[in-house]
Amino acid sequence: MSILIKNIILDGEKKDILIEGNKIKKIGKNLDSKAKEKIDGKGENAVLPGLINCHTHAAMTLFRGYGDDLLLKEWLEKKIWPLEAKLTEDDIYWGTKLACLEMIKTGTTFFNDMYWHPKAAIEAVKEIGLRAMIGLVLIDFDSKGSKENVEKLYKRLDAKNLEPISLSIAPHSIYAVSRKNLIWAKNFARKYNLPLHIHISETKKEVKDCLKKYDLRPVEYLEKISFLGEDCILAHSVWLNDKEIKILAKRKCSVVYNPTSNLKLAVGNIFPYKKFKENKVNVCLGTDGPASNNSLDMFLEMKIASLLQKHKEKNPTILPAKEVIKIATKNGAKALKVNIGEIKEGKLADLILIDLNQICFKPGHNFISDIVYSTTGNCVSDVICNGKILMRERKVKGEREIIKKATQRAKELVKRY
Amino acid sequence: MSILIKNIILDGEKKDILIEGNKIKKIGKNLDSKAKEKIDGKGENAVLPGLINCHTHAAMTLFRGYGDDLLLKEWLEKKIWPLEAKLTEDDIYWGTKLACLEMIKTGTTFFNDMYWHPKAAIEAVKEIGLRAMIGLVLIDFDSKGSKENVEKLYKRLDAKNLEPISLSIAPHSIYAVSRKNLIWAKNFARKYNLPLHIHISETKKEVKDCLKKYDLRPVEYLEKISFLGEDCILAHSVWLNDKEIKILAKRKCSVVYNPTSNLKLAVGNIFPYKKFKENKVNVCLGTDGPASNNSLDMFLEMKIASLLQKHKEKNPTILPAKEVIKIATKNGAKALKVNIGEIKEGKLADLILIDLNQICFKPGHNFISDIVYSTTGNCVSDVICNGKILMRERKVKGEREIIKKATQRAKELVKRY
Repeated sequence: MSILIKNIILDGEKKDILIEGNKIKKIGKNLDSKAKEKIDGKGENAVLPGLINCHTHAAMTLFRGYGDDLLLKEWLEKKIWPLEAKLTEDDIYWGTKLACLEMIKTGTTFFNDMYWHPKAAIEAVKEIGLRAMIGLVLIDFDSKGSKENVEKLYKRLDAKNLEPISLSIAPHSIYAVSRKNLIWAKNFARKYNLPLHIHISETKKEVKDCLKKYDLRPVEYLEKISFLGEDCILAHSVWLNDKEIKILAKRKCSVVYNPTSNLKLAVGNIFPYKKFKENKVNVCLGTDGPASNNSLDMFLEMKIASLLQKHKEKNPTILPAKEVIKIATKNGAKALKVNIGEIKEGKLADLILIDLNQICFKPGHNFISDIVYSTTGNCVSDVICNGKILMRERKVKGEREIIKKATQRAKELVKRY
Repeated sequence: MSILIKNIILDGEKKDILIEGNKIKKIGKNLDSKAKEKIDGKGENAVLPGLINCHTHAAMTLFRGYGDDLLLKEWLEKKIWPLEAKLTEDDIYWGTKLACLEMIKTGTTFFNDMYWHPKAAIEAVKEIGLRAMIGLVLIDFDSKGSKENVEKLYKRLDAKNLEPISLSIAPHSIYAVSRKNLIWAKNFARKYNLPLHIHISETKKEVKDCLKKYDLRPVEYLEKISFLGEDCILAHSVWLNDKEIKILAKRKCSVVYNPTSNLKLAVGNIFPYKKFKENKVNVCLGTDGPASNNSLDMFLEMKIASLLQKHKEKNPTILPAKEVIKIATKNGAKALKVNIGEIKEGKLADLILIDLNQICFKPGHNFISDIVYSTTGNCVSDVICNGKILMRERKVKGEREIIKKATQRAKELVKRY
């Protein structure tokens, strides 16, 4: 399979891009090739790396809008947990497909997931063609999340033959997984060379409880049990002090900023971006699950990410447009250790085309500014992932069926409850 | 002119809506009529009142993306003011048209504007068919904003024959307009029964300077000169204390929340929504100008408005979806004193149709939640304003020319500078 993209705007210049197999083979002017597929950007499309959503729970699309404007405890206990207890493999399959469809339509080509029934999620992602890291969830209060089950799942899943899907070990959090099981998780992950994906320091309560139980703050606690390393992807990371940020820097962890979810659930604090940057911690971006956002549109996430940091620091120059695009692309690739996140020869071919005819790009003084502050995921016209065209002129194969089936599953799920 | 909208979802039920002239004549089931235009929602479209943007500077679309991520002083002095000094009537005409096009495409049917060359703005709005209140700007340091010029403009504009456009008197702010001229403005406005539109308490500096000069906070100062009344629309209103909020309540002023702009320019505080609500002050919503947002999409503004209040109050139940839709519709209509903002028989026919087939409405547990938290202005399929169809299936008459001409004007403006 080869694709030639002609007359596409890359970093302000009209270029051609040749994709062979799953890689960007050549970038230049007037490229000629016998590529099987040709796309002509006509100078009216720009190209960006596919966006990388570093923390989500994809199949929670099934719960979008099901419980909003509620206190966290009520939201979890009355809405989310009772429904989650009823989820079947089939629900997860269709919920994940719906999420993948939304991600494709809004320019995300890689997502880092953490949810139930990973086998069904993998099947959905594989069929639709996105790149993803699927977490095997470890949690104390559900037998699906026992270490025995995680081990069994891992052995059944044949990790090496899932490409472009990969696996992580995903202990939910320090409050939902015991010390013993956290240690088991990190040992298991390191034995099989799998990344660790965990929620950390999302709420003040989590910090307070950890201090009470261990006389340590959450990051100090993880450090003490030798959990932290370059293989760690830490979602939220909101309630941290300077000492904890320095530990994360020393251990070369990646942290995921989830601004919309943090605001919507009113976690009460703002991700300390400036301090992470000063300490050279790798910062990525994520939407969190579609029940607490309620969108998977990483363009909106970039805008809100930047706005919120400007507010926090009382400084409009903080997290400028170029930098927020970097955290949504290159930094994500670094965290997930995949050769993506930039449009360069030799990189894997995960890229999105942007329709510059849309009004959000007018008058067009600054493309980078327009991407972050003016547009939404709706500006994406075409999506290529791992060298395959997943969306062409906003059309995705099978989208009607996905919407129909996922909607049915969600409605039936609510009825079962 | 009459329009029959069949099979449209209104408050969760399939209904028909008959529009005659510029009003909603009848809402019911199985309406039959000889309406000239028919639109069939097929149960796949919902209807909402057109959104009301209560504070913007429309023609600043010409500057979208021209100066972002800068300190306020640098942004104004090096970017915005030098360009504004070069603006011609023709620039304003095309800049306003581009803004109107974006507003139509994202479901806004009324905007409250404050900018230069009102005659050109009015011409643009009139041609495109939106409803608007155009402010005649009073400012001390520019002869275009002198009271003589405002008076001359007003007398030339024939206010009574502009419908559905109306005029306001718009003294820029307490720091850009002298006490004497503020008093002139409110007297002039009241003599001719025109609303007053002003920026107030956007930055801490404004409050500090006012205290230094008058030993009064901004709202106290306006109260002292008898400026405040039911006819006042106060943009920003961020840095207020309890006493000022009580004054605004007593005087029945309307305040405009501009969350994105406040974040992007890092004004350092958050609009005190909860206190306004407790004091029954009429709160409206606005995008501010497209140079400090950089979008005119009121759907995004609703999402960010709600998220930010949840964060401020550390409470996810604050400013729920239903309430934020109200501030973007009914409350705006109240401030602007126009018979719009709701879909009811007898109201003026300003309404927007929503395409429920879009993925942001799937699975569709809660339409109101989806409108605020999941979708963007791109979900709007059709727009009717003052009984006229302005957008049909996302197509607006003349849109290509507007984009082309406005882009040319913006590029030439930057060249002139």
